[in-house]
Amino acid sequence: MERPPYLRLHFGPTSERQISTKSIVDTIRTQLNGKIDLSGCRLPPIRALAHQLGVSKNTIQIAYDELKILGLIEGRDRAGLYVATREKSLPFSEVIKKVGSPKLKTYPAHPNTLEHSPDEIQLSTVFLDPDILPREKISECYRSVLKNPGLRTHYSSQGLLPLREIIAKRLRDRGMDADARHVVITAGSQPAIDITTRSLQTKIVGTEDPFYFGGKVLMELNGLQTFGLPVDPFVGIDKVIWEQQIRKYRPGLLYLTTNFQNPNGYSYTSEELAHIIEWAHEFGFGLLEDDWGSEMLSYSEFRPGLRALGGKDVLYINSYTKKLLPSLRLGYILGSEKTIDNLVMAKRVSCLGTPALNEYALFEFIDRGHYDTHLKNVQQILDQRYNNCLNLLRELMPPEIKWTTPGGGPILWLEFPKRVSIEQIIQNLKNKKIHLIPTQKTFFKTPHNHGVKIGYAFLKEHQMQKALELLAVELVNELKK
Amino acid sequence: MERPPYLRLHFGPTSERQISTKSIVDTIRTQLNGKIDLSGCRLPPIRALAHQLGVSKNTIQIAYDELKILGLIEGRDRAGLYVATREKSLPFSEVIKKVGSPKLKTYPAHPNTLEHSPDEIQLSTVFLDPDILPREKISECYRSVLKNPGLRTHYSSQGLLPLREIIAKRLRDRGMDADARHVVITAGSQPAIDITTRSLQTKIVGTEDPFYFGGKVLMELNGLQTFGLPVDPFVGIDKVIWEQQIRKYRPGLLYLTTNFQNPNGYSYTSEELAHIIEWAHEFGFGLLEDDWGSEMLSYSEFRPGLRALGGKDVLYINSYTKKLLPSLRLGYILGSEKTIDNLVMAKRVSCLGTPALNEYALFEFIDRGHYDTHLKNVQQILDQRYNNCLNLLRELMPPEIKWTTPGGGPILWLEFPKRVSIEQIIQNLKNKKIHLIPTQKTFFKTPHNHGVKIGYAFLKEHQMQKALELLAVELVNELKK
Repeated sequence: MERPPYLRLHFGPTSERQISTKSIVDTIRTQLNGKIDLSGCRLPPIRALAHQLGVSKNTIQIAYDELKILGLIEGRDRAGLYVATREKSLPFSEVIKKVGSPKLKTYPAHPNTLEHSPDEIQLSTVFLDPDILPREKISECYRSVLKNPGLRTHYSSQGLLPLREIIAKRLRDRGMDADARHVVITAGSQPAIDITTRSLQTKIVGTEDPFYFGGKVLMELNGLQTFGLPVDPFVGIDKVIWEQQIRKYRPGLLYLTTNFQNPNGYSYTSEELAHIIEWAHEFGFGLLEDDWGSEMLSYSEFRPGLRALGGKDVLYINSYTKKLLPSLRLGYILGSEKTIDNLVMAKRVSCLGTPALNEYALFEFIDRGHYDTHLKNVQQILDQRYNNCLNLLRELMPPEIKWTTPGGGPILWLEFPKRVSIEQIIQNLKNKKIHLIPTQKTFFKTPHNHGVKIGYAFLKEHQMQKALELLAVELVNELKK
Repeated sequence: MERPPYLRLHFGPTSERQISTKSIVDTIRTQLNGKIDLSGCRLPPIRALAHQLGVSKNTIQIAYDELKILGLIEGRDRAGLYVATREKSLPFSEVIKKVGSPKLKTYPAHPNTLEHSPDEIQLSTVFLDPDILPREKISECYRSVLKNPGLRTHYSSQGLLPLREIIAKRLRDRGMDADARHVVITAGSQPAIDITTRSLQTKIVGTEDPFYFGGKVLMELNGLQTFGLPVDPFVGIDKVIWEQQIRKYRPGLLYLTTNFQNPNGYSYTSEELAHIIEWAHEFGFGLLEDDWGSEMLSYSEFRPGLRALGGKDVLYINSYTKKLLPSLRLGYILGSEKTIDNLVMAKRVSCLGTPALNEYALFEFIDRGHYDTHLKNVQQILDQRYNNCLNLLRELMPPEIKWTTPGGGPILWLEFPKRVSIEQIIQNLKNKKIHLIPTQKTFFKTPHNHGVKIGYAFLKEHQMQKALELLAVELVNELKK
């Protein structure tokens, strides 16, 4: 077999006293990247090139090593180095054809978007009934903000100070160590997860199994490896497996939704939270608490979470999307003296800032007491809807079906016997315009629960009745099979 | 020298017919990650472990290779493998101590934030004078939107359809191939750059030298390598170096600001744009055009950009931050049939959606004709301010100073002789409450221009006069040295 020819190189005049590795790399790089494809040619032996340029063999060796890292040359056998096969350039139009990771493809469109058909009943949604939302009062706040002659039309990267102050005060009232200086306003929870996980030093993150889909996809987009910590909404966390997993993966962070975990609706006990904080200290990982749901539950102010129990090193995120108005897209991260500068920087790079106009309006809304009035109203309505949902479940469901009793809030978990085909039920209900979100893909491996999430915050009582009646019929049919 | 002891491992009972590599890896991993630090111990020889488990040596070899990749074991000499030194866990509170990349630290706070002192004169800002902003009319639009009984309170991941339609129509009027289906609404330009570069297949991006700071830092946060394409605002692009750089780096994308490049204020010629499109086809890279500035310039509708000239494969981004109201934080990406699905997915993962409330209000504002009226007003005022700025420069500047004449819009470039210390001038003016943004760090290597950016969109005429008078005094002093 014949060897391919050696590559002839040209080195221009130089004023360098000592020819540097860099200039050798640059010269070769430029000649290899020209119009003519030279792939397959052999590079001159190190001693020959060192002789030609009057430099040490070591200098050439380093230059060749760098060209290898750049993918321009490669070793094919013991005898020498060759110009690597050129990567085919993408056609002009294909640059974005396959987004970052193929996992993105598995991230479904949000079922509660504007595009969604309004006559479908959303039986799994975590959103609040739009009719409960205080649009009139929000409108008043916008009007007042935009009339204010002192309004600054720019934005702050960290977020409007008065808003950060009122948020911090409310969190302190809930027993958390919170200072306005350590709050960053974000465009909802998703960007809060984005900013936090973009800022992580560590690359391994543990999260609940089943997991919050949007959070996991986003963390993976940010280059993190995730692993699962099993939670069963009927029995809580499995401490033995949690500790095994923590030992196995040595995470840098756990991302946990401590109230109304999505999708299974579980809320952690104090004993579990204390265990998690102990592990965090023992194994040296951080904690990120996502508290999207607690304010929708009556008396949840008496249920301290990770931040309240674990102190200011616990990162805490929350949002107004589900409680106030989805189309505001506002939330926040609560950090600490140690973490805040980097979180603000990560936010600035990600988006420069959140809409100050919305921040002003939200501040007005909270400051005038509208938010407290609204929450009280939400909790009352949700208590009723929860009780209505429980009554319907007791009345309609076949005996083998079981459900959790979270005591109110937005969602509960409905568990089926394993022989029920969830896919079939979802498909049949879809034909009757009842929309259930499948959850089986939110488990890391084989699902340890077999059921669906039922959201009672979005549906009026008659809608819930209709949906559960149809679901019961499907279940009875499935169980007969 | 004594060898460290071999590691004793325990393998539990198994029901596997054939013990898999995976179960070997998992067992060893769990034992190495326990409380006791076993680092330094030797792994049993492959043949010994293969014998113990009754598997082939190859199975053990693969398991050991995987443990090496996981960083749990390492080869120290020819004789064998050792348990690797444990990475020290971070203390609980240090997880976010050093954000992603140290480069973030170099990204300065935005000078036009709410925190900024209002009595400083911002001589380099690219923002518009807040007094020109149509707050009253925006307020009316919010009021009308929030009164609308048909208002959906949720958001669409791609962005409100009527808004996308009106944007696409306006772009078509400017000679671009644009369809509402290919528009994604974003929270300004920065998230538009984020979403686009998160979606890239390729990892090398070329951008102007000097570069837009926020864009470059963000692209690097997204794992891209950037390189510079020199632009001199007095002579344009250096085609020889551009082609050399393109050949050298083989980019997947060029990110270019074709009108009022930030910081140097250059706007590309048709001949340059045609060259760039030719290169894109020849070398197979994509184009991302950032058009933040053109609408602020009178008659810019007769100056086609890359998207208009290069067709629908050119990705185009624009924003309302600088033209309408910074605190709205709305902008968009225009893609194509081929790219849109992935762009929408990347947006969904990044933030779920932009505030629909702001999208509705912006739609109303454009639809009622307010935006056109406003732009006309902005252009007229900017024409005056530009002329005023030119007159002042002619009157005040020492003879060695030169400047560009972009014909209006928001910024121009002011060039000093090399012997002038820009740092000194910025420092002296700062003491007099005149704020100039340093640009020397926005060049990839040694700056080929030596000056500052002058923004005339933000300052009233008397402010500009004061600022340029003080700048002229400093320059005269520096030139005397």
